[in-house]
Amino acid sequence: MDKNKVEPKTLPGFMELLPSDQIEFNSIKEKIQKSYEKFGFLPLDTPIIEASEVLLAKAGGETEKQIYRFNKGDNDLSLRFDLTVPLAKYVAANFGELSFPFRRYQIGKVYRGEKAQAGRFREFYQCDIDIIGDGSLSIMNDAEIPSVIYSTFKSLGFEDFTICINNRKILNGLFKSLDLEEKSGDILRVIDKIEKIGKENVIKELEDEGVEKAKIEKIISFIEIEGDTDGKIAELNKLGITEPVFVEGVSELEQVVKMIRTYKVPDKNFKVDLTIARGLDYYTGTVYETFLDNYKKLGSVCSGGRYENLAEYYTDKKLPGVGISIGLTRFFYQMKKENILKDEPKAISKILVATMSEENIEYAIGVAEAIRNAGINVETSLGDKKIKAKFKYADKLQIPYVAVIGEEEVNQNQISLKNMQTGEQETLSIDEVIEKIK
Amino acid sequence: MDKNKVEPKTLPGFMELLPSDQIEFNSIKEKIQKSYEKFGFLPLDTPIIEASEVLLAKAGGETEKQIYRFNKGDNDLSLRFDLTVPLAKYVAANFGELSFPFRRYQIGKVYRGEKAQAGRFREFYQCDIDIIGDGSLSIMNDAEIPSVIYSTFKSLGFEDFTICINNRKILNGLFKSLDLEEKSGDILRVIDKIEKIGKENVIKELEDEGVEKAKIEKIISFIEIEGDTDGKIAELNKLGITEPVFVEGVSELEQVVKMIRTYKVPDKNFKVDLTIARGLDYYTGTVYETFLDNYKKLGSVCSGGRYENLAEYYTDKKLPGVGISIGLTRFFYQMKKENILKDEPKAISKILVATMSEENIEYAIGVAEAIRNAGINVETSLGDKKIKAKFKYADKLQIPYVAVIGEEEVNQNQISLKNMQTGEQETLSIDEVIEKIK
Repeated sequence: MDKNKVEPKTLPGFMELLPSDQIEFNSIKEKIQKSYEKFGFLPLDTPIIEASEVLLAKAGGETEKQIYRFNKGDNDLSLRFDLTVPLAKYVAANFGELSFPFRRYQIGKVYRGEKAQAGRFREFYQCDIDIIGDGSLSIMNDAEIPSVIYSTFKSLGFEDFTICINNRKILNGLFKSLDLEEKSGDILRVIDKIEKIGKENVIKELEDEGVEKAKIEKIISFIEIEGDTDGKIAELNKLGITEPVFVEGVSELEQVVKMIRTYKVPDKNFKVDLTIARGLDYYTGTVYETFLDNYKKLGSVCSGGRYENLAEYYTDKKLPGVGISIGLTRFFYQMKKENILKDEPKAISKILVATMSEENIEYAIGVAEAIRNAGINVETSLGDKKIKAKFKYADKLQIPYVAVIGEEEVNQNQISLKNMQTGEQETLSIDEVIEKIK
Repeated sequence: MDKNKVEPKTLPGFMELLPSDQIEFNSIKEKIQKSYEKFGFLPLDTPIIEASEVLLAKAGGETEKQIYRFNKGDNDLSLRFDLTVPLAKYVAANFGELSFPFRRYQIGKVYRGEKAQAGRFREFYQCDIDIIGDGSLSIMNDAEIPSVIYSTFKSLGFEDFTICINNRKILNGLFKSLDLEEKSGDILRVIDKIEKIGKENVIKELEDEGVEKAKIEKIISFIEIEGDTDGKIAELNKLGITEPVFVEGVSELEQVVKMIRTYKVPDKNFKVDLTIARGLDYYTGTVYETFLDNYKKLGSVCSGGRYENLAEYYTDKKLPGVGISIGLTRFFYQMKKENILKDEPKAISKILVATMSEENIEYAIGVAEAIRNAGINVETSLGDKKIKAKFKYADKLQIPYVAVIGEEEVNQNQISLKNMQTGEQETLSIDEVIEKIK
């Protein structure tokens, strides 16, 4: 290449897709959006850039290091690293204008300067829903969320997935009853790893944290509670822990499970998992993680939970909420890698209207317009390329049909329709073509 | 407010809408997208952050000053300021994988640190389509673009708009014939202002530029060419300018006009405007601007044109293209301000399913599910709020129907449906409700 040229490279950690992949990606994104809208969530689209003071009101530690932060003129600015902080700002700023419970979805890009490695993205889509209460928020909402997750993953074509549910109060209550509250953060972090590192290593790490053996035994016997959803709840009630936080957590979990069934989420698609903690200080009640049964190694593909107070850094108003997030960019990357993408479209146009010669252009434009008016995406190829080249183009773009328009077709007011998959070609009227494609 | 709270403010120049406005905005954005897809344009979604070296390969002057540019680690990064430079990078980088003509649309946010003032945005959506040829690109594409503009604005509910068309070669050829090529940039800049500053000031400014009087006269008589589309073209042919660039421009314009009619764009919705130049060095052939007939002061709401070479900074390949852009954020702001927004939806949910008491929850969830399965967005209100409060909530969210579910409804397997606009309430079966809402 010419030395004066700049190499047209895209930054590592930034997903940029070829058109056929982008079509799949957009199809999935749209299905998630439609699914969220089916349940009446309202759209938001907050800025990607915020004042650092606003965005980092709460952040700290690892998150803050990853932030894209910079000055423009006198302004200290940052790119959003999630959609929750902007939501908190938004609700605090527009409190008087909103109706509560405020149900919103937002699907947008967020930015984290993570170490670049396969499957880690610095720019990625999050698809969030949250329900925010003014002062209080009914536990009913904690049960509706799994029904949205269920409906969303069904709409993506999945059957075998499990929404795992827990309640942070159960864990917190357990630690309180063991007088381990101060260590709860560390203990949770260790417990969270049990699937990865195994029971023996969890015990070892808890010992390293200075937890007494008797207490470790209680913790382990708690997280080893077996059984189906109802069995686990029964076991929890049998533990005899009278600590009020624990009792409240079990009661909430019971209510949520009962309501999830009323929402007709099949027992096959949800379960109680007492080890799920989800972050250390943010969630305060129900928590969710979602796994594809046959691809557990992908980790949770949709997570969230209940929090006490959305916007405490911006307002005195108490705003409890419950929500979930799908990290779509990573999920899409994983689905492509594991080849578990369901039947998504690969083309925008359903048909390419191609002329044999210049004389047929007017007729071809009329055909294209008629098919478009029936709600079908149509591309035209009216230039003087050979028809073979036009077939090749349609094939490369995975357009399923080509309408060949020659002198005969024009004279007979017909279309020669080629099915690009079977190679079959037949002569049809415009209406028959529309019928066929729809 | 508590002194420890951070003020939840959004940066000036960044549009952040209330939900009902956001629903309208999204509806318009989706209509534009659907319209672009109707013509078979492929979606792209390039990163918002690019390496400064890549993004600024061409930029300079005013644009560069407005750029959000910063360092992260060792990397010199910038936020995209349009969707054309990322397209150029993309096509150069993925040349071998793409099919030409490469037809893509991109709808996304771009960033310019402009002076904050009403109607000026630092973060705004552009909705672009471009058709890129490999080596050459048929003039047919220059004619298809106005048919896409026409279809798009029709889909937004507009009738009275005019797509103004010109060809840069005509202007360039004129200047060449007058031996004013070197001053063409300055002259174009002056001509471009004629609507704003008037003929006398244009003459004065041209004199200030040092253009001879005789030449100014020729320029003025050129831009004053009157008549309808065909009349203007006839006048151009009568000027007797033999400069080949000029002749080619007039010929291209003639072809484009002829084809636009074949594309069935009504004469009412397009015209030749010989004063349109669109930028000084980027466009090289056909150029477009689009005006709402009754709101000309809004300026062009959709502009673009033909360019010689998309990606010369990245590749030796010659990639001519033609495209347009709608600056959606500004357009939406203007439409709201001028109150010319067409009939866009203001609510996501078509119906709120509200229970009278806890006993009705299961039935209500079944009702909501049945309506959702018919493809209708449904919100539920199952909490123990009074029904009056639920009506008020629906009213505030502009949800058109409320299904009231009480004991009687459950017993009779019916729904009491309230039309929130008329206040009318009637008892219907689920199927009747679905029929009604659809």
